[in-house]
Amino acid sequence: MTPEQNLANLHETLPVIPVPKAIYKPCLIDGKYLYVSGHVPIRPDGTRISGKVGLDFSSDEARDIARLVGLCIISSVRNTVGSLDRVKRVTKIFGMVNAVPDFDRHPHVINGCSELFAQIWGDDNGVGTRSAVGMGSLPDRVPVEIEAVFELHVESAEFDA
Amino acid sequence: MTPEQNLANLHETLPVIPVPKAIYKPCLIDGKYLYVSGHVPIRPDGTRISGKVGLDFSSDEARDIARLVGLCIISSVRNTVGSLDRVKRVTKIFGMVNAVPDFDRHPHVINGCSELFAQIWGDDNGVGTRSAVGMGSLPDRVPVEIEAVFELHVESAEFDA
Amino acid sequence: MTPEQNLANLHETLPVIPVPKAIYKPCLIDGKYLYVSGHVPIRPDGTRISGKVGLDFSSDEARDIARLVGLCIISSVRNTVGSLDRVKRVTKIFGMVNAVPDFDRHPHVINGCSELFAQIWGDDNGVGTRSAVGMGSLPDRVPVEIEAVFELHVESAEFDA
Repeated sequence: MTPEQNLANLHETLPVIPVPKAIYKPCLIDGKYLYVSGHVPIRPDGTRISGKVGLDFSSDEARDIARLVGLCIISSVRNTVGSLDRVKRVTKIFGMVNAVPDFDRHPHVINGCSELFAQIWGDDNGVGTRSAVGMGSLPDRVPVEIEAVFELHVESAEFDA
Repeated sequence: MTPEQNLANLHETLPVIPVPKAIYKPCLIDGKYLYVSGHVPIRPDGTRISGKVGLDFSSDEARDIARLVGLCIISSVRNTVGSLDRVKRVTKIFGMVNAVPDFDRHPHVINGCSELFAQIWGDDNGVGTRSAVGMGSLPDRVPVEIEAVFELHVESAEFDA
Repeated sequence: MTPEQNLANLHETLPVIPVPKAIYKPCLIDGKYLYVSGHVPIRPDGTRISGKVGLDFSSDEARDIARLVGLCIISSVRNTVGSLDRVKRVTKIFGMVNAVPDFDRHPHVINGCSELFAQIWGDDNGVGTRSAVGMGSLPDRVPVEIEAVFELHVESAEFDA
């Protein structure tokens, strides 16, 4: 099964990622690396989610939100490289939870995204290094933001001429 | 226009970055990558800035502070590679705002740095991936800290012998 | 002196890093890079540490905890590449302190880890770029979490076939 076939089997609707209003690129290809900016949860209908984890959302709800952030990242990656099949593996994710000061279940929350990536790229290539940590605040008071680095298949890498 | 010419046209005075008291390097060259440690705001006269964004500083004031952090990064980059013309593009910035728990305008704040980089390296090469997020606290209570990765022009890269 | 000899001379007992319960790899080799996930303090007897810096721990106590996190990273790196002698240098560390909102001594805390790395890999190769910052919360309420990127010696790098 290819990553695109794995995604199709999940029957998920990918959110549409809007053009950034601020000054950054959602993704950037550098040789065999695909850098991904911090992504926030946007539902397939375009609505946003805001609130603190441990106050407005339980850790299970936040885990579902982290999965949605994963879908947003996947949507962005596809916009950039055309097909998930061009991505070889997950190198690194940095999972940020907008939580109350005593929150302690960040790994459980970020697993929502990590599980999705493992479903798409497999239990080895879909699982990279990770930190799952708590922020003091996040833009628009989103509960979860995740940034990532992926490795592209060599034939998909873009090198200097 | 070259990046050095663009900087000259901004008529900015670059802060002098002190030798680190703690155990780190402000910048490190690795092949074609230039890694930049988290930089904090230091004014050209050497004075520091401290306080929380959303309490001691408005988001517009914090945006000016983020631009100052960008100038500190530029000063450090120049110390390390000699000329901004050796830098090809911005790969990634991680913008950290020391904000109150309900602050929500991190992208507006970090745009202060991103705008500066776009003025110097252009709207394409000067704009990379980014996360703009809120920390619980920062060293010396600085309101903004930014770390970055730049890509050097191939002829400026330093590889193993 | 080699890094392994330097470690032996410190007479430290390395903690055993448990297999992750969450979905991530503690370390990942990519070409000449060794990416290291966020590591938390685990004592050699397997016990954990939790609490806020500036409330439950002083900055000096937190510095010792950051050194322990450094030992956990070293234990993980050895599990992955077999010997510390395969690591050429520290490229980057991201030091996260779970502190009260007004805490200001993050560099002092993270120096506990940086000093250890300098003792093992030397004052040049053992010192990379760094950010030392304050988080709103951390998993299991640990006081310090550190992630890192190391560079491997070329002959130890793993490239695509």
